[in-house]
Amino acid sequence: MIDLYTFTTPNGRKASIMLEEVELPYNVHKIDITKQEQFTPEYIAINPNSKIPAIVDQETGITVFESGAILIYLAEKTGKFLPADQKQRFQVLEWLMFQMGGVGPMFGQLNHFKKFAPEKIPYAIERYEKETLRIYGVLDKQLADNEFICGDYSIADIATYPWVAIYQFQGLTLDNHPNLKRWVETVQQRPAVQRGMNVP
Amino acid sequence: MIDLYTFTTPNGRKASIMLEEVELPYNVHKIDITKQEQFTPEYIAINPNSKIPAIVDQETGITVFESGAILIYLAEKTGKFLPADQKQRFQVLEWLMFQMGGVGPMFGQLNHFKKFAPEKIPYAIERYEKETLRIYGVLDKQLADNEFICGDYSIADIATYPWVAIYQFQGLTLDNHPNLKRWVETVQQRPAVQRGMNVP
Ligand SMILES: N[C@@H](CCC(=O)N[C@@H](CS)C(=O)NCC(=O)O)C(=O)O
Ligand SMILES: N[C@@H](CCC(=O)N[C@@H](CS)C(=O)NCC(=O)O)C(=O)O
Repeated sequence: MIDLYTFTTPNGRKASIMLEEVELPYNVHKIDITKQEQFTPEYIAINPNSKIPAIVDQETGITVFESGAILIYLAEKTGKFLPADQKQRFQVLEWLMFQMGGVGPMFGQLNHFKKFAPEKIPYAIERYEKETLRIYGVLDKQLADNEFICGDYSIADIATYPWVAIYQFQGLTLDNHPNLKRWVETVQQRPAVQRGMNVP
Repeated sequence: MIDLYTFTTPNGRKASIMLEEVELPYNVHKIDITKQEQFTPEYIAINPNSKIPAIVDQETGITVFESGAILIYLAEKTGKFLPADQKQRFQVLEWLMFQMGGVGPMFGQLNHFKKFAPEKIPYAIERYEKETLRIYGVLDKQLADNEFICGDYSIADIATYPWVAIYQFQGLTLDNHPNLKRWVETVQQRPAVQRGMNVP
């Protein structure tokens, strides 16, 4: 059994989609970050960085925080969505890192400045909107020749999907990026993705 | 032989420090991002995201972009700085992801707003300074009980060091984070780190 500590955000959904895809049984522990529940001593013992998601694998006793590490852990545990072939494996790992270091943080800053910040700061909104659209372009080009980001469906797609899926919330359109749009619609149709997107 | 595409920035230095640490022979190809050299068709064929660093391993024909994926690749190729034991291995991978998704992007935004942006925007400077200091605190706490981030020296340290080492450039001090300060001074003394920090 896996314990999943999560909330209703894109980084949390990466973990719940993966758990649904690999069909491992898991308990959901909702950590309401709007109520500062990520800062309790109990949760800091699980994730010293006070962010969701995190998992505890009761079978191995291993705790993992950071969504990217959780995806690798669950992929290796089940042998799914991370190819064994070294060339293909590193393609998935580099695109996973691109999600972790680029897509997530940059789309997250756009959310902050466009939706949540108390002041509207045009320079910052423009900076992160431009970077988000640049990243859309990189993904669109990659998806022109590939059904999924690295050919077959992988943890690179699972990591990226919840962040691209919020494009309307971010006031953006995918109409100028047809391959990315086709990919989002394809991923969205997966039953495990639909279930994972409803957790918690 | 490894081809390394890099520049004089923290993300580039992660790769050159690692190559020095594992003592693999490598050729340095300087990609001057201040002259837009990351946008040439030749470089985009190596990294579709147009960022440094990237490597090409002539021995396997494998190309890897994203510093975090490069560190895992070189660690696995040489059997160094990423433990085989699953519990320890995922501790290193989660702290590597913390660097990739937190330390790098957030310290990078602080650089931008504090040092490079054409306008001084107090809200943004404060946002990223606060997050950088919060991250210093997380690392300081981890380093209170550990000589290196995950006990033994690992790719988590190699990823994090070049970003913490620029604290003076960022107008910050480590004086309030004594464990982090001790760690930076320890890592800095490694000959491979000193060599790697001078590339290119
Ligand atoms: N790099 C981390 C980012 C996690 C993250 O930013 N989580 C957010 C929600 S999407 C959070 O817990 N925020 C609460 C806080 O910052 O206090 C990961 O991918 O797991
Ligand atoms: N997540 C990437 C970030 C790489 C990155 O941001 N590289 C910067 C230099 S530190 C760059 O190439 N910037 C050029 C540009 O953005 O056009 C990694 O860790 O490799």
